[in-house]
Amino acid sequence: MPRARVLIRPKTGILDPQGEAVERALPALGFGGASDVRIGRLVELDLDDAADLDQMCERLLANPLIEDYEIELLDSVVS
Amino acid sequence: MPRARVLIRPKTGILDPQGEAVERALPALGFGGASDVRIGRLVELDLDDAADLDQMCERLLANPLIEDYEIELLDSVVS
Repeated sequence: MPRARVLIRPKTGILDPQGEAVERALPALGFGGASDVRIGRLVELDLDDAADLDQMCERLLANPLIEDYEIELLDSVVS
Repeated sequence: MPRARVLIRPKTGILDPQGEAVERALPALGFGGASDVRIGRLVELDLDDAADLDQMCERLLANPLIEDYEIELLDSVVS
């Protein structure tokens, strides 16, 4: 049963308050030089049939209005 | 300025209620055959110095008590 990984990110131009909060917090902890911080979700799952994964993302895992997703299969990138 | 990606996952054995909710929801949407669903966070950022990234994860990005993290630099895996 192949394992799949889905990387879900806020779309370009969509406000990312978590990312902004991290970007502001890092200098306060002494870490300089970080920019364009974006925070998304990571979904990993075992699948019988990876062909369903795109529909799973559209309908449940991601919000296609505000998020982009990228699907990776174990050792290979399909989309 | 290199871009880095951090994959943050609940540690093995740590309860993942989001993953369980997704695993239960998928069959209800007609998607069978998914198991061991785990949901974590994805952090992507530009960095002047990637040497700081491990400490950033330990101190801000992840909770090392309950989460594992994996650092990837653009086109190469460092940890």
